[in-house]
Amino acid sequence: MAVKLGANRYGKAETRLVHVVRDGPVHHLKDVNVSMSLSGDMEAVHLTGDNAAVLPTDTQKNTVYAFARKHGVGQIEAFAQRLARHFVASQPAVRHARVEIEEYAWRRQGPHSFVRDGTEVRTCLVHHDEDGRTTVVSGLKDLVVLNTTGSEFHGYAVDEYTTLPPTTDRVLATAVTARWRHDGDTPSYATSYGQVRQALLDAFAHTHSRSLQQTLYAMGERAITTCEGICEVRLALPNKHHFAVDLSPFGLDNDNEVFHAADRPYGLIEGSVLRADAPDAGFAWE
Amino acid sequence: MAVKLGANRYGKAETRLVHVVRDGPVHHLKDVNVSMSLSGDMEAVHLTGDNAAVLPTDTQKNTVYAFARKHGVGQIEAFAQRLARHFVASQPAVRHARVEIEEYAWRRQGPHSFVRDGTEVRTCLVHHDEDGRTTVVSGLKDLVVLNTTGSEFHGYAVDEYTTLPPTTDRVLATAVTARWRHDGDTPSYATSYGQVRQALLDAFAHTHSRSLQQTLYAMGERAITTCEGICEVRLALPNKHHFAVDLSPFGLDNDNEVFHAADRPYGLIEGSVLRADAPDAGFAWE
Amino acid sequence: MAVKLGANRYGKAETRLVHVVRDGPVHHLKDVNVSMSLSGDMEAVHLTGDNAAVLPTDTQKNTVYAFARKHGVGQIEAFAQRLARHFVASQPAVRHARVEIEEYAWRRQGPHSFVRDGTEVRTCLVHHDEDGRTTVVSGLKDLVVLNTTGSEFHGYAVDEYTTLPPTTDRVLATAVTARWRHDGDTPSYATSYGQVRQALLDAFAHTHSRSLQQTLYAMGERAITTCEGICEVRLALPNKHHFAVDLSPFGLDNDNEVFHAADRPYGLIEGSVLRADAPDAGFAWE
Amino acid sequence: MAVKLGANRYGKAETRLVHVVRDGPVHHLKDVNVSMSLSGDMEAVHLTGDNAAVLPTDTQKNTVYAFARKHGVGQIEAFAQRLARHFVASQPAVRHARVEIEEYAWRRQGPHSFVRDGTEVRTCLVHHDEDGRTTVVSGLKDLVVLNTTGSEFHGYAVDEYTTLPPTTDRVLATAVTARWRHDGDTPSYATSYGQVRQALLDAFAHTHSRSLQQTLYAMGERAITTCEGICEVRLALPNKHHFAVDLSPFGLDNDNEVFHAADRPYGLIEGSVLRADAPDAGFAWE
Repeated sequence: MAVKLGANRYGKAETRLVHVVRDGPVHHLKDVNVSMSLSGDMEAVHLTGDNAAVLPTDTQKNTVYAFARKHGVGQIEAFAQRLARHFVASQPAVRHARVEIEEYAWRRQGPHSFVRDGTEVRTCLVHHDEDGRTTVVSGLKDLVVLNTTGSEFHGYAVDEYTTLPPTTDRVLATAVTARWRHDGDTPSYATSYGQVRQALLDAFAHTHSRSLQQTLYAMGERAITTCEGICEVRLALPNKHHFAVDLSPFGLDNDNEVFHAADRPYGLIEGSVLRADAPDAGFAWE
Repeated sequence: MAVKLGANRYGKAETRLVHVVRDGPVHHLKDVNVSMSLSGDMEAVHLTGDNAAVLPTDTQKNTVYAFARKHGVGQIEAFAQRLARHFVASQPAVRHARVEIEEYAWRRQGPHSFVRDGTEVRTCLVHHDEDGRTTVVSGLKDLVVLNTTGSEFHGYAVDEYTTLPPTTDRVLATAVTARWRHDGDTPSYATSYGQVRQALLDAFAHTHSRSLQQTLYAMGERAITTCEGICEVRLALPNKHHFAVDLSPFGLDNDNEVFHAADRPYGLIEGSVLRADAPDAGFAWE
Repeated sequence: MAVKLGANRYGKAETRLVHVVRDGPVHHLKDVNVSMSLSGDMEAVHLTGDNAAVLPTDTQKNTVYAFARKHGVGQIEAFAQRLARHFVASQPAVRHARVEIEEYAWRRQGPHSFVRDGTEVRTCLVHHDEDGRTTVVSGLKDLVVLNTTGSEFHGYAVDEYTTLPPTTDRVLATAVTARWRHDGDTPSYATSYGQVRQALLDAFAHTHSRSLQQTLYAMGERAITTCEGICEVRLALPNKHHFAVDLSPFGLDNDNEVFHAADRPYGLIEGSVLRADAPDAGFAWE
Repeated sequence: MAVKLGANRYGKAETRLVHVVRDGPVHHLKDVNVSMSLSGDMEAVHLTGDNAAVLPTDTQKNTVYAFARKHGVGQIEAFAQRLARHFVASQPAVRHARVEIEEYAWRRQGPHSFVRDGTEVRTCLVHHDEDGRTTVVSGLKDLVVLNTTGSEFHGYAVDEYTTLPPTTDRVLATAVTARWRHDGDTPSYATSYGQVRQALLDAFAHTHSRSLQQTLYAMGERAITTCEGICEVRLALPNKHHFAVDLSPFGLDNDNEVFHAADRPYGLIEGSVLRADAPDAGFAWE
């Protein structure tokens, strides 16, 4: 039987880099987790174990640390692009690089003291190809939000397995995973990140929701229409169910005051919102 | 600015079902985790919150339990297909269903007693479309394997950031995530699962490895060439580094006996192996 | 061989309660995780399976929800005491109750909208005994802090297995788990919590550290001497190692700018700081 | 206000050691996670940062690796004792050592190939004191077991918050954490481990259970009465609830066939079973 190699990539995952910039007595901190995948002319290594085309993942890790020293980290989207371009430019067999970075937030406590801040993690995903194309996706994950009211769910399809009663008042809670695609003209990734994050929070808080899908769309739409340079937003929103507990056996009412926060199962709502004229995504999301 | 809805799907994730079949005093156990995503005519719910097309995720969960009672669970690939077909067939707005199942293994201790077995989890991913196409991907994850020798790594590309010394003897360890695509004629998913699992283990154990990529390809090739009905295997293999500890400061040698098992960073090798005549994958992997 | 029952306890763990207080359009949120353990005359249930003395853990869970409705949650230390006293007072066989609560912080985004805040979790552990004694321990965990300088480590004991070079400048980072014992006169647990948390942060940030043990003691001492009603602080501080990366192979220096944040192994420093006249702890920490 | 140092200890946690013994072409594997805590004359380091008494945790880690090379690992209880005795004997300031080890099981696939086996982890906790006393506790955790029948729960205490219906047939499932104290005459820890593990499994499988407490006691009693050299067993058994799903809305019965496996909350049953003449535990469990 004839067998062939299909799509493949390899790299170093989760290089944990902490970078300190010393501005006199005042220090600045970057705390990131860098994962890289390279692809290209990799037939030989798979078929015969000939490693001539393989830049070791250990070297990739070293490059992360060396580049932090040489160039600083700065915005993660820029750092990822620098790494991706380096591997494609310097390794003949490497045709394409994919760099993913997570950044953890810290709040200043003193000139050289910091406290981890928030539950959410800032992310980016950068692709760079030997033909010169670069795509940049920014994002966040684990941004946990909750509305205690302003959420309904009724008028849905019903079949023989439906037992859920309709409701005009429920808790709506989710852990936002959002990623947004830039289309080239983002002057500051830091500013953009803050704007998109705020747009997502505002839309969640201020949308009177008849379904989590509606809220998802409102969040994506708000980000695209208010933040420059964003052409597509993809959201994954687990519906973290909060069930009002039936207290009637104890002679108590429960007017949406006492909830059981459930773990599993959970609804999972995934969707994309695009500018109508968004360019083709290419490999941006891969 | 004109904005539009892009790709979307929704469903109930991680419904934890345990099904007991009572064969007189001897009981049989199925322990699964079912996640579903439906897609189709879902513009209205996103844009206006009109839920008429939305079958609640709560109903989806109920369907899992009711189907287990009515039809049993059996092979997870078959159970997933039954669910996927049901949603597409019964809901006019649902054009496509995606069902993912994890199965946890138990070893019998007595007629009605069981012990959780192994670290690995059996998986499947089934897509069913209103046009009648169904694709089935089987898999496993968290199958942790280790060779204490028979692995080399040398002859790789070197640049200014390379410090890794070549080696002709190292520990090779990984946690296998494997998924394989069926092309239609798999008579028994249970038999097939056992065959593919064994093929992966055999190829890992018996390949003298010059790189993890070579081992990956050997694993995929062995599965495809020895297991009927499999046209593509995708593997993700983290290189779980085991570093020989430098004991020379203590006047001790270390001939690959004492290792530090590292957590992060780790190499990550991903690749696909296909039959040369594999049909187009369509949405099988989405 | 004669065998006997030793210490035992049982209860419902991890009841996830979310409580909403509606103050007109402005809502308030409490998000807690309640774990209870009861003990007392439990010989029969262990030896013969006679459950007459056993209040079901399901009932304990119901009580959490009912009490939230009847009395609100308020400060977790008070809620825990209310629960503990109830079980001891109402169940003849229950001689002692232990209630542990975790509270998750939320930041207000709007009148009924909230965002999860911070990584740290507020905790309490309350014991109540049939003889009337109650002990209250408050705490926090997962408070992650980091100093980029102001930390040394040298002058330590050296043996034949020591290879660590001394340093006069290192990163010091930890995830604080702190618990503090009240000795009866804490007028407001909310105020007290804020004071202790700030004392711990201040001592961490402003102690020039020659060892993590010294920092631990400074944190405990600061909390005890500045916060009313606290007689003992127990701290567990993992030393989250940040290793300066050797960049010399690349012709680069590294003056404590580029660090590898390691996962395992880690140092673990545990210690208690007490007021010299602290009363006996009794069962407070059990 | 006068403040003093209370109980304290420090050490290196989670040193991940993999040890390979090469017996010609056949290799043997030990995979362990070692955590140590030392205590003694540690006032100075806490109060003034004087590290003279402190053997660095880095040195402790080195010692683990060097000892594996010099002496092999063997049974974890013996390896832990060797380490504990070394630190107390060689460091004047160290009065007491506590060593905790986890061991991960592997199943042989070939002369030098292995597959991770089972979900459970073997554990030990060893204390050694300068006065010569040594205590050894062996254990296991994450041993997940389930009976599909043979479990009842009724006749329990009822109060105004009780809604649970009694049952004469339920699923009983738990993840066993067990630790057992040796009293000095255990000729083979390997044999002992196998015996106790089997005794726990047998008692779980073959006890007709009227409560999880009864099963807990039966497990401890079986281990003590059938395994030589064990004087106390401590068990922590989460009651992993499996709720029979109400299928009546769909016109289906459910005679304990279809279950929802819940995550939280869960019952937690903890207890100790001792030989009537068990010696005092001293610091064995600390």
